[in-house]
Amino acid sequence: MNPILAVGSVAFDTIKNPFGEATRVVGGSATYFSVAASFFSDVRLVAVVGEDFADQGARVFAGRPIDLAGLQTVPGETFRWRGEYGFDLNARETIYTKLNVFEQFRPVIPEAYRSSPFVFLGNIHPRLQLEVLDQVTAPKLVAADTMNYWIEGTPDELREVLKRIDILIINDSEARELSREANLVKAARALKAMGPCTVVIKRGENGVLTTCTGEDEFFAAPAMPLEEVFDPTGAGDTFAGGFMGSLAAGNKIDDAAMARAIIYGSTLASFAVEDFSLDRLLRLTQDDIRARFRHFKRLTHFDEG
Amino acid sequence: MNPILAVGSVAFDTIKNPFGEATRVVGGSATYFSVAASFFSDVRLVAVVGEDFADQGARVFAGRPIDLAGLQTVPGETFRWRGEYGFDLNARETIYTKLNVFEQFRPVIPEAYRSSPFVFLGNIHPRLQLEVLDQVTAPKLVAADTMNYWIEGTPDELREVLKRIDILIINDSEARELSREANLVKAARALKAMGPCTVVIKRGENGVLTTCTGEDEFFAAPAMPLEEVFDPTGAGDTFAGGFMGSLAAGNKIDDAAMARAIIYGSTLASFAVEDFSLDRLLRLTQDDIRARFRHFKRLTHFDEG
Repeated sequence: MNPILAVGSVAFDTIKNPFGEATRVVGGSATYFSVAASFFSDVRLVAVVGEDFADQGARVFAGRPIDLAGLQTVPGETFRWRGEYGFDLNARETIYTKLNVFEQFRPVIPEAYRSSPFVFLGNIHPRLQLEVLDQVTAPKLVAADTMNYWIEGTPDELREVLKRIDILIINDSEARELSREANLVKAARALKAMGPCTVVIKRGENGVLTTCTGEDEFFAAPAMPLEEVFDPTGAGDTFAGGFMGSLAAGNKIDDAAMARAIIYGSTLASFAVEDFSLDRLLRLTQDDIRARFRHFKRLTHFDEG
Repeated sequence: MNPILAVGSVAFDTIKNPFGEATRVVGGSATYFSVAASFFSDVRLVAVVGEDFADQGARVFAGRPIDLAGLQTVPGETFRWRGEYGFDLNARETIYTKLNVFEQFRPVIPEAYRSSPFVFLGNIHPRLQLEVLDQVTAPKLVAADTMNYWIEGTPDELREVLKRIDILIINDSEARELSREANLVKAARALKAMGPCTVVIKRGENGVLTTCTGEDEFFAAPAMPLEEVFDPTGAGDTFAGGFMGSLAAGNKIDDAAMARAIIYGSTLASFAVEDFSLDRLLRLTQDDIRARFRHFKRLTHFDEG
């Protein structure tokens, strides 16, 4: 087994959408990532929560191969986010972000985690991402996520991160903003030139575009066509979890493994959006995952005839 | 060989985009369709041109298996369209549309064409599409294109067309408009319920979503990632030509043949946008097509591992 060290946020979310409302449910990028990745591999979670997290939070991680020795509990309240979606679920409005205990978060990697072969740097301050990299001793594969807030606010530190990671996982608008290229092919090339040898561009309902390292330049996958996207919160982090989990579960990292990982990531994300919070992921079985992966295969399969 | 009867517009286009300008070049939906389809199958073109079309037009069709006995030449000028694209090549502005001889066009299907097994109804007035259907005697497969102008202006006649075709080829915004469903899965189902057993939704740079007739509900393909889209004029008609050509060249119509046809359509369209007018298609070879089809295969291939 190749355990994955995951660093990011754990939060309570309050979400309103045209289908209903969920109050103070468990969320956070590292939460979605860890639960998704745990279907494939062992996960070591480094994050911070307040004293209010306890039982409700524990339920999410219980019974999964997620090591919580790096989950700090400190006095105060857990990070809280409140968002609302209209009928266009691609656009969301953040009502508030209360960092709470997350404001003082410094990732301390437990001794036993430092040799983790797989490292995922969730969407946190690039300076904290660099601190994680300074503490790990033998990473085989490092992936990172980021967002417009850091692209605009801390561009120099983000550039440093890019030089030290293998995989950048980023959504399309952020890829364009960070590369200053409107065309995604050009954006992917520009981001690759900044450091990561693989750039994974998440395009929401338009699928994923990924750079390759071999003879071909790209791998592309459509998204699973879904009739109802109930709650897209955490879909990108869930994608990253399925993606990294699949890579960690395999025995070699090549373009074929990357392509497979993209589909496992897309598979997990397609489940995550079916219910509020992590509810659908918590009910998910290995059989569900296998069936939808095969559905993806049939969805995209063609031959020369 | 299964010849394809293609009915639509043949035009002169004047196109301006950030990369240059092309004045009075050959265009029109049936032109792009026929040239693309002719790489796979015999095409029988029914359209109208003015006396000004002669040499310049003939050059486009020369040396290809495109029968022009149904191309009427009448006194007057050929249909002319002028459009401009900004840097966002997805948005274009029509500067003018001069129907000219096309205004009085009534499709007269030559006796020898009436038994054509494959029929493509280009984007013309639904009443004319119905007139074509009244003249053909043994269609094995009928596909049609349409646009917002007919969806809004002649909805009842368009509904009649939908009841009499096998395949609707339509772009995403038009699919939403015609079905009154924002979600593409719901839109595809609603359109299928209107008649066609296959609905092909063209999503531009986001690929294609197609309904299936067998156990699975959809086939999806990403678009070829392109660094430069030089001129998107005619891309949709070229897609339709490659798609129908591929179907006509095969010996059975099933979901596998449809999926393959979607990729051949996407392949031809990816070439069409590389230059003004039909210029790239006119230089295209069977080897080019085969190589890019295989590129598409590698672009989208993954396995369970």
